[in-house]
Amino acid sequence: MNPDSVLRVEYEKVKLACSADYKSIEASKAIFELVAVSLAFLRRSCKPINLVSKVSNKEYFSFTNGSVIARPANKALFVRSVTAIRTLWKDWLGDRISAEGFSMLSYTAALAPCLAMEIFDRQNKKGPATYFECYIGHLFARTLGVNPTKAVRLPIQNRDVLMTMDFLIDVGGKHRKIHLPVKMSTRERVVQAWAHQRLLDAAYGEEIYRGIMVLFSETKLDSRSLEVVEICVPDQWLAYQTYLAHMDRIYYFDMPERYRNLTSIYPSVISIKPFGEFFKEKESVLYS
Amino acid sequence: MNPDSVLRVEYEKVKLACSADYKSIEASKAIFELVAVSLAFLRRSCKPINLVSKVSNKEYFSFTNGSVIARPANKALFVRSVTAIRTLWKDWLGDRISAEGFSMLSYTAALAPCLAMEIFDRQNKKGPATYFECYIGHLFARTLGVNPTKAVRLPIQNRDVLMTMDFLIDVGGKHRKIHLPVKMSTRERVVQAWAHQRLLDAAYGEEIYRGIMVLFSETKLDSRSLEVVEICVPDQWLAYQTYLAHMDRIYYFDMPERYRNLTSIYPSVISIKPFGEFFKEKESVLYS
Repeated sequence: MNPDSVLRVEYEKVKLACSADYKSIEASKAIFELVAVSLAFLRRSCKPINLVSKVSNKEYFSFTNGSVIARPANKALFVRSVTAIRTLWKDWLGDRISAEGFSMLSYTAALAPCLAMEIFDRQNKKGPATYFECYIGHLFARTLGVNPTKAVRLPIQNRDVLMTMDFLIDVGGKHRKIHLPVKMSTRERVVQAWAHQRLLDAAYGEEIYRGIMVLFSETKLDSRSLEVVEICVPDQWLAYQTYLAHMDRIYYFDMPERYRNLTSIYPSVISIKPFGEFFKEKESVLYS
Repeated sequence: MNPDSVLRVEYEKVKLACSADYKSIEASKAIFELVAVSLAFLRRSCKPINLVSKVSNKEYFSFTNGSVIARPANKALFVRSVTAIRTLWKDWLGDRISAEGFSMLSYTAALAPCLAMEIFDRQNKKGPATYFECYIGHLFARTLGVNPTKAVRLPIQNRDVLMTMDFLIDVGGKHRKIHLPVKMSTRERVVQAWAHQRLLDAAYGEEIYRGIMVLFSETKLDSRSLEVVEICVPDQWLAYQTYLAHMDRIYYFDMPERYRNLTSIYPSVISIKPFGEFFKEKESVLYS
């Protein structure tokens, strides 16, 4: 079979398994399989290519096949070896992974299928974003032992209106519920996440839903010059966070430097961290 | 000169004249010229084509050239004759236009350049949306005698953050300022308008900025079947309007039936009207 057919079959399996049960071992297996075939195709049928990083202290590369170049991968975080990823995956399932191992595993597992789909199955435009959402849904569902939902009822004028959001998780007990917006990159549309948080706060009260946003990166590749830049809008985020709604945490798989600075200048306003930190602080973030 | 060169030159003139002074007679002339050449090209180099309207009580057509079909035009509102548009334009400038004349003039003036650009200058992807914004900016600036701005300062943590929005107008005196979001169609991104209104309300108080949203239509054309449908999300709008912020008015150039129904079921919550109504109620909407 061609790479595009294999990838499409494995991708559909991930979607099916997740929609049946995000927290299941079947979902875990389907995701790992897609990651493994993606890494195999990238290694077997593509050339790695160095990119010109305009981001200080980060190096990027990618994969190319013919005239197609996939999106940038951070050299310090991406693991090319299927064997290494398999070991890290088992460590994660067994809850014995290190924080550093988790950063590299989650970065690679999130990105490898997107790179492979960008090169071998360009028809599947929504594939990368949909896959990323499946992967984050699985990560949180397994961590919490609870499946996320995607719709919330808002009472309006004596009836309920159903709104679709990225993920909502009812952790149970007396814990706050979780509103989990998920995006590969934010451009223009990130305001939706804060607006949804505001809808939840206004309809149910400010302490009911905790906002945890999970983002992949903000890199942009110029396919001619091969330059990689990070696009950030810290002032907009500060305005959303101050006047629209409060996100408890914003996690990045590849943390942009300007958002790290924003967090150190306004620690009481906004908290943007590498996703690896979630691994260390998940108990306090999810259940406090 | 080819149509694409002529259109691009006239389009650039509109952008220049509007950025210099939206309310000027030079902006008016530039917009009229672009409308006139667009109508001439559509008549001379395109074939009209009937579309299959799936929208009750509305008929749509469009223009085609080779394999390209432009977006749908409402038959009852679109005026094909340059001469007729010139007369209506003069009536508008002289403030002696009828409400019905204004509906047809504004619908045609907004749409004709978009149709022409879609057929003759497909490179200019942002052209239709940018032109529509110029035209609405001009309409409001002439009506109010005041130019709109696009940036607002929001005080955050002892400094001011600059946010870009579609249009903001300081009417002067003791009147409420106007926040004027402008979009050709809303899909996905409309939440930004309510979010911006919420930022203004939270930073300055709820009575300072009046939200007036101007939209063109919600039609979607299937280029194979030639069917035209309207895509509406009334429940989402109700949720935004109830829990995010309050838009004082929402005007459509081509009013979707489902939003008309929404307004009649919840008149105290939301007010969505044909743009022609603005002509009749502008004094009370702008200065009350």
